[in-house]
Amino acid sequence: MDAMIRTGIDLGGSHAAIGLVNNQGEIISTHNIRTPEYSSAEGFVNECVNSIRNLMQSSGVQQINGIGIGAPNGNFFNGSIDNAPNLPWSGFIPLAQLFQDRINVPVSLTNDANAAAIGELQFGIAKAQNIRDFIMITLGTGLGSGIVVNGNLVYGHDGFAGELGHSIVSMDGGRLCKCGKKGCLERYVSATGIVISAKEALSKPNNSILKEKSDNLSALDISISAKNGDSLALQIFDETARVLAFSLANATTVTSPEAFIFFGGLANSGELLLQPLRKYFEEYISVVYAGKVKMLQSSIPENNAAVLGAAALAMGRL
Amino acid sequence: MDAMIRTGIDLGGSHAAIGLVNNQGEIISTHNIRTPEYSSAEGFVNECVNSIRNLMQSSGVQQINGIGIGAPNGNFFNGSIDNAPNLPWSGFIPLAQLFQDRINVPVSLTNDANAAAIGELQFGIAKAQNIRDFIMITLGTGLGSGIVVNGNLVYGHDGFAGELGHSIVSMDGGRLCKCGKKGCLERYVSATGIVISAKEALSKPNNSILKEKSDNLSALDISISAKNGDSLALQIFDETARVLAFSLANATTVTSPEAFIFFGGLANSGELLLQPLRKYFEEYISVVYAGKVKMLQSSIPENNAAVLGAAALAMGRL
Repeated sequence: MDAMIRTGIDLGGSHAAIGLVNNQGEIISTHNIRTPEYSSAEGFVNECVNSIRNLMQSSGVQQINGIGIGAPNGNFFNGSIDNAPNLPWSGFIPLAQLFQDRINVPVSLTNDANAAAIGELQFGIAKAQNIRDFIMITLGTGLGSGIVVNGNLVYGHDGFAGELGHSIVSMDGGRLCKCGKKGCLERYVSATGIVISAKEALSKPNNSILKEKSDNLSALDISISAKNGDSLALQIFDETARVLAFSLANATTVTSPEAFIFFGGLANSGELLLQPLRKYFEEYISVVYAGKVKMLQSSIPENNAAVLGAAALAMGRL
Repeated sequence: MDAMIRTGIDLGGSHAAIGLVNNQGEIISTHNIRTPEYSSAEGFVNECVNSIRNLMQSSGVQQINGIGIGAPNGNFFNGSIDNAPNLPWSGFIPLAQLFQDRINVPVSLTNDANAAAIGELQFGIAKAQNIRDFIMITLGTGLGSGIVVNGNLVYGHDGFAGELGHSIVSMDGGRLCKCGKKGCLERYVSATGIVISAKEALSKPNNSILKEKSDNLSALDISISAKNGDSLALQIFDETARVLAFSLANATTVTSPEAFIFFGGLANSGELLLQPLRKYFEEYISVVYAGKVKMLQSSIPENNAAVLGAAALAMGRL
């Protein structure tokens, strides 16, 4: 008898990772697609379905038993994406239905960060440490979050719980976000946000080694400079951590998580971000939570958490 | 056969309401105690137990089947109060155990706002409108909150979920809170907070009718003046609503509630607070939540929500 194989798709602003996942939660084959190259969701779905068929063929898989998708603004309740600010397709996209029109398997969809949270719960550090109340933070092009309460993902009344990237950092405004509001957290804390912070800092007189790169700067450049001791880069990480600490301290007063679990490009900066984050978090948090909340880095390799989570979503439970 | 009677206790910073509650969720008898008059928790518990016995005698009740307590910083998991900033007793108070030492019935304890949320869920507007995802906001001496997700109260990993009163309104500080932190929401939005705001405003040149009362001002004075069209009082309500809207917009990105339900003294100001609250909330909230979140006033009369909720806690379910 063939093993049960599901497909997990992690759909992000810059690329989509597609993986075939077996019963044991192992990713047996993956392929990446560059999201911005597809001007229509239909074109993107066609390419995904082609990729799935290629992966099946090259891996000797005869049949898949479900597709799970983690996507920005993905709604579990109706399988759609609605006004995702980081994707090239605007408005209401019935993504699960678009897949089902082209491939005859059940398709489930949720927020990409929710999928990562399910991945952590079933295969990651949350499972290893038996953490049943946590908030997943994914730091990519934007900032995503997945809220887990007592071992269950929180969807909220409309499926849109866990959008901490669009919590706001000041009641008096701030950087304009793609969502139309001012001061959204992800405009400060994400690969995009930290580059904006760096460009602002570099517009003033400075001696930073980043100065030469200022036209074509990436979050990785800033991280490397900080690791090399560049004081401006270190100051940018410090301020990024302070903004994040403010929002996480406030989220803590809602669900009192045991941990925040970080995943994604900027999270790979590790202690550069987490060390000042812990310091500011303790400054901002009320005494009832003091010293109780862990700041952990995901133990699942890049991309795999969301792909595994999406696949886990497709199967209910592995 | 005797009806099953439980006791619900709503313990607040200014007073404690004790009620006997029957199977149908009706409060058959109540008594209030002034909390600040008891310098020790043991003295307070003695007085409560005396009151319960008096209420039983005057109502012809032979036996009670449980006590539920809603208390500031009340912890469901261990039946204790820990560092409650609005109560006269500091440190760790094993309140459920203190009751059980004096009266031989099961005692359960939770956050006072959690108890109010359970009351709304079982007897209030949440039940009437079938709302299963909501955040209860109690506006008394402080600001309490209870988080309900998919019909269940959220306790968090340590029992301290739902402390929105100690979310902070600015990362650059603010009014000093009794909890030791700066900028806690309840220092702006509560009976105490709105009086501080009024005193700040009255320290500047003004023509407000509140000027004469400035030494001995209450939240009710401000509310009455606003209803009478006093522009300074209206401006204070507007600014209070703006601060509250900021924190509620951010909490919405965590659990995506269908509604916020307001209860308590300041909430009785009704549309004076709720009308500007709705306006600012829509300004602060991300597009995915726009126009979706209801701002509702509790339909349960003052005190009863918390007393009924506490009694409901005592019985699991009525």
